Amino acid sequence: MKYFAGIDLGGTFIKCGIADEAGNILIKDKIPTGKERPYTAVAHDMAQLVRALCTRAGVAHELLGAAGIGSPGTADGETGVIAYNNNLGWHNVPIGKAVGQELALPVFVANDANVAALGESFAGAGAAFSSSILITLGTGVGGGIVLDGRLFEGKRSAGSEIGHMVIRAGGVPCTCGRRGCFEAYASATALIRRTRSTMLRHPESAMWQISPTIEAVNGITAFDGMRRGDKTAKRVVRAYIDDLAEGVANLINIFRPDAIILGGGISAEGETLLSPLRKRVRGLVYGDFDYAPTQIVRAVLGNDAGLVGAAHYADLRSR
Amino acid sequence: MKYFAGIDLGGTFIKCGIADEAGNILIKDKIPTGKERPYTAVAHDMAQLVRALCTRAGVAHELLGAAGIGSPGTADGETGVIAYNNNLGWHNVPIGKAVGQELALPVFVANDANVAALGESFAGAGAAFSSSILITLGTGVGGGIVLDGRLFEGKRSAGSEIGHMVIRAGGVPCTCGRRGCFEAYASATALIRRTRSTMLRHPESAMWQISPTIEAVNGITAFDGMRRGDKTAKRVVRAYIDDLAEGVANLINIFRPDAIILGGGISAEGETLLSPLRKRVRGLVYGDFDYAPTQIVRAVLGNDAGLVGAAHYADLRSR
Repeated sequence: MKYFAGIDLGGTFIKCGIADEAGNILIKDKIPTGKERPYTAVAHDMAQLVRALCTRAGVAHELLGAAGIGSPGTADGETGVIAYNNNLGWHNVPIGKAVGQELALPVFVANDANVAALGESFAGAGAAFSSSILITLGTGVGGGIVLDGRLFEGKRSAGSEIGHMVIRAGGVPCTCGRRGCFEAYASATALIRRTRSTMLRHPESAMWQISPTIEAVNGITAFDGMRRGDKTAKRVVRAYIDDLAEGVANLINIFRPDAIILGGGISAEGETLLSPLRKRVRGLVYGDFDYAPTQIVRAVLGNDAGLVGAAHYADLRSR
Repeated sequence: MKYFAGIDLGGTFIKCGIADEAGNILIKDKIPTGKERPYTAVAHDMAQLVRALCTRAGVAHELLGAAGIGSPGTADGETGVIAYNNNLGWHNVPIGKAVGQELALPVFVANDANVAALGESFAGAGAAFSSSILITLGTGVGGGIVLDGRLFEGKRSAGSEIGHMVIRAGGVPCTCGRRGCFEAYASATALIRRTRSTMLRHPESAMWQISPTIEAVNGITAFDGMRRGDKTAKRVVRAYIDDLAEGVANLINIFRPDAIILGGGISAEGETLLSPLRKRVRGLVYGDFDYAPTQIVRAVLGNDAGLVGAAHYADLRSR
């Protein structure tokens, strides 16, 4: 049995887990990132954390096959260089090489949403499928694409930006500068924006009982309103699911994967979200849906997806 | 040297070419499909055509490695069964097996637009690149996706329907039943529709000199009007390129391929189309375009793309 370290490099914390070849996390922990320091100091801490966890888990260093790092922003999978990381303020940082030298092991770097997709695919909601796409419905819309068990990243790992597929050209402005992106309609941020603007037009809505101020509106407000029988809230949820379905149907038409996996905050709604979404998507997919049906399911690994995925990425890449 | 037969199965003609391993067509010919006959008769004719072409080209049967068939509709690459072919009125026809038995060779079947993409990628406009996407701007918007030199087809070969990626949810009705598909904005049919409706609103447009009747409008009318300095025609072309750019940018954000290859009737405009398209796409792509630039080029193989691609598909699949 070989073991692999999975590292999630965040702006606040560095999380690390030691996983076996099957994607089971033996042990995990986190330390502050200390992002204001030189990257070499951050790399040193990462390596120390990996070693400490191995010791605590009783994994001999020679059984550790490789380490994987999931980083926000663009990380070139071939070179291990983080081209750009907004959270850390990093540009062209060869973090893979730096950690690799400390650990005397191969270290591979990829985008954090991409490795989360690989984690869900390998040991989570997609474990029964060879091809799946993770869509995370959070502050933005992230995700990753797993084809035949391998992460698809595109040229210099710059692909897989599914949140920035336009579904309504010229529509709502997106943080990326374009208008009408999937993210601008399907993120939690977008749902909150819709909920707020609808509440302002509907002072009679029961959503005001759930969220007495406009500032307190969150991604659950409209779902909660719907559960109380509020028609206005129901319309907000339906419009959100309609737009989510457009993006999901696009990805099915392009990839026809075995599964679409929904993660992120909004996916916590479970079947309240998934059941109407499945019905809507069926009507939008090209040709005969049942000829090659795509399952639409909820992510199950939560925050561990990134650790499991980074470890498995290291496993695949080091073979 | 091995040789491969590439077959293009159309509603009117069966075309066939014998290609070498490098994708050079030694000889090609076509025969009527006779689609009203049982599929076994069509399969027999296909096999006869392959044998006849081999004899004429002096290729010994034992040097023929395999045959590939490009078919419209959905063709399952794993089983060689054409699930559905509208042009032929075929359902669940095991054409691969039928032709394979006649030829005593492995025969592989794929979608015709997909194998054309593989042909352009292997021996055409994409020959210098490992990953490319062909977009054909014809009656519809077809195409195919080649990743690391291999055709991407999705589950049961039902993916790669890039024309049915919505770019304007709720927009123009598409033949597929959905609204706002890329095809409904970027096909030649869509350009003709735009040109006509604009001409009807602008009786002063020079486009009326090019096409004196609304029925005579074709995919070149607006481009010709623009070349004569007509502002109305220029607006039609610009709006068309803007929408084409949205779909192209989506595909770049998702795949970040080495190249996007434009084929089909409208691509004959060459740089008149490509130059403004490249500028527009740059502004829409997520992140830094130059970090991993995608070339936007014109297809070069024309109708041979399908034959070359089907032959190369057979080569790849029979290895």
